[in-house]
Amino acid sequence: MTAKQLFEEIQKKRSFLCVGLDTDLKKIPDHLEKVEDPQFEFNRAIIEATAPYAVCFKLNLAFYEENGAKGWESFLKTCSHIREKYPDLFIIADAKRGDIGNTSQMSARAFFDDGLVDAITISPYMGHDTAEPYFNYKGRWTVILALTSNPSAADFQMQKLENGKYLYEQVLESSRSWGTTDNTMYVVGATQARMLRGIRKIVPHHFLLVPGVGAQGGTLQGVAEFGMNRQVGLLVNSSRGIIFADRTERFAVVAGEKAAEMQQQMDELLAKYLK
Amino acid sequence: MTAKQLFEEIQKKRSFLCVGLDTDLKKIPDHLEKVEDPQFEFNRAIIEATAPYAVCFKLNLAFYEENGAKGWESFLKTCSHIREKYPDLFIIADAKRGDIGNTSQMSARAFFDDGLVDAITISPYMGHDTAEPYFNYKGRWTVILALTSNPSAADFQMQKLENGKYLYEQVLESSRSWGTTDNTMYVVGATQARMLRGIRKIVPHHFLLVPGVGAQGGTLQGVAEFGMNRQVGLLVNSSRGIIFADRTERFAVVAGEKAAEMQQQMDELLAKYLK
Repeated sequence: MTAKQLFEEIQKKRSFLCVGLDTDLKKIPDHLEKVEDPQFEFNRAIIEATAPYAVCFKLNLAFYEENGAKGWESFLKTCSHIREKYPDLFIIADAKRGDIGNTSQMSARAFFDDGLVDAITISPYMGHDTAEPYFNYKGRWTVILALTSNPSAADFQMQKLENGKYLYEQVLESSRSWGTTDNTMYVVGATQARMLRGIRKIVPHHFLLVPGVGAQGGTLQGVAEFGMNRQVGLLVNSSRGIIFADRTERFAVVAGEKAAEMQQQMDELLAKYLK
Repeated sequence: MTAKQLFEEIQKKRSFLCVGLDTDLKKIPDHLEKVEDPQFEFNRAIIEATAPYAVCFKLNLAFYEENGAKGWESFLKTCSHIREKYPDLFIIADAKRGDIGNTSQMSARAFFDDGLVDAITISPYMGHDTAEPYFNYKGRWTVILALTSNPSAADFQMQKLENGKYLYEQVLESSRSWGTTDNTMYVVGATQARMLRGIRKIVPHHFLLVPGVGAQGGTLQGVAEFGMNRQVGLLVNSSRGIIFADRTERFAVVAGEKAAEMQQQMDELLAKYLK
C-alpha cells in the first residue's frame, strides 16, 4: 500500500483509527476460554465490530509470543483473516525488532513474505542496518520508534546531543532519508502532542503511528492539531480503550461502539484540520 | 544462575564460549532437509558436538520466527533439550526486544516462565521501563544492547551527547543501576575491542556478551586483553564460524573441532589475563 492509498482509505472512512489487538488472554471474556483458539476468536469478533470505523489493525507480537507456537498460529490466523475479509485495511506487526543484516532479513521474510502484514515496527538503536532489509519489499512499511509514550522514554530519547538536538530528533533526521514517505513511518506517542509541532518540522510528509491516546493520557485533539499534514499523516492507535472496554459477552458490541465514538471525533477533526 | 555460578562454569570448562544457534534453514546440510524438524535436529547435533567446549548457547529468535509456529516449536524444543541434557549451560534468547510495561511483562513471561531460558537481549531505546519486568525473575538475566558490532552502530550509539559522553556510554551509565551484576549483562561487539577499556571503566563488574569475533573481524585476543575482569566477565559468541563451518554430513564434527579450537585459545587467554 502506498501513502496515497492509505490517505484515500482515511478519506473514505473519515477515520485514521488503528485498533490495537493487544489480546491478553487473561483479559478476554470468560465464555471465550472454552473455544479452540480463544485469541483468534476474540480478535475475529473485535475485527468484525470495529473494521467499519478503522483503517488499520496493529498486533502487538508479545501478546501472541507469550503463548508460544499456539500464539504464533493465532497471530497468523488473525492476519490472514483481516487480509481476506478486509483487504483494504492496513496491518501492522508491532514487533519492535531491532536486529541487523542477515537477522533482520530473516525477520523481514517472516513478516512480509506472502503479504502477511503491511508494516513492522523497529527500534533504531542499531542504526540504518536494522531497517535496510525491510525496504526490499515494495509496498511494505517500516515503522521506526522515534518518541515513545512511556514514562522512561526520556531516559535516552530525550538525551540532548552535542549538536543541540534531542536523540529522537536525530533519529528522525538521520532515518528520513533511509527510505521514502511510501515505506517509512514513525512512532510518536500522543502523550507528547506538543512535541508534534517540532517533529513535523523534521518529517513534514511522513505518516506517524501514534499510540498513547486514552489510557496513557494523550488527546486526539492535540494529536490532530499538531500532527496532521495534508495527507493526514496520522494513524492513531487505541488498544485497551476499545478491545477491553467491556469484558462480558457484549465485548465486541461495546468495542464497536468505542471505535465508532473515536471515528466520530476523527471525522470532526478531519473537517477542522485537513487542508 | 548467579554471576558467581557462571564464573565457576567458565573456570571448570576453561572456556567463555557462547555458541550462537543462528540456524538458518537455507544453510543446513541437505541430508537434514528430509527429517521432521530439521532446525531442531541440526541444533541437537551441534549442541552435542560443542557443549563440552562452551558455557552458553544463544538462540537468535529471528531464525526461528521465520518459520512461524513450526519455528517456535523448534526454538522451544531446543531450549528444553539443552536444559535437560546440559543443565549447567546458560541459555540466551537473542530476541532484542524493546517494548514496555505490560508488553514486556508478556515477553518476560514467554521467555522466563518454566525456566525456558536464562537471559533475553533487549534494546534500550525506550528506557528503563523495557528492562523492569525481566528483573522480577530471580536468577534470570537481561542483556542490554550497548555497543553493537554492525557497521551502522555508529548512527546513534556513537552520537556524542551534550555531556561529552557517547550515547552507548550513557546507556551503560544509566542502566547499570537498574538491576545488579547478577541480572544484567551488556552486548558489546568485538569489533570495538579497543573501546572495551573505556567500557570497563563504566561497568567494571558486569558480564559482557561479545559477538563479532571471527566472521565480523574481531579478535579473541583483543576482547580478553581489554575486557576481562576478575570473574572473567565475558561470554564470547561465535555463530557462523562454528555451526556453518562445514555443510556436509560432517557438519557437527567440524563444528565440534571449531569450538574446541576456540576453547583452546580461551584456555590460554584465561591463563594470561585472569588475575
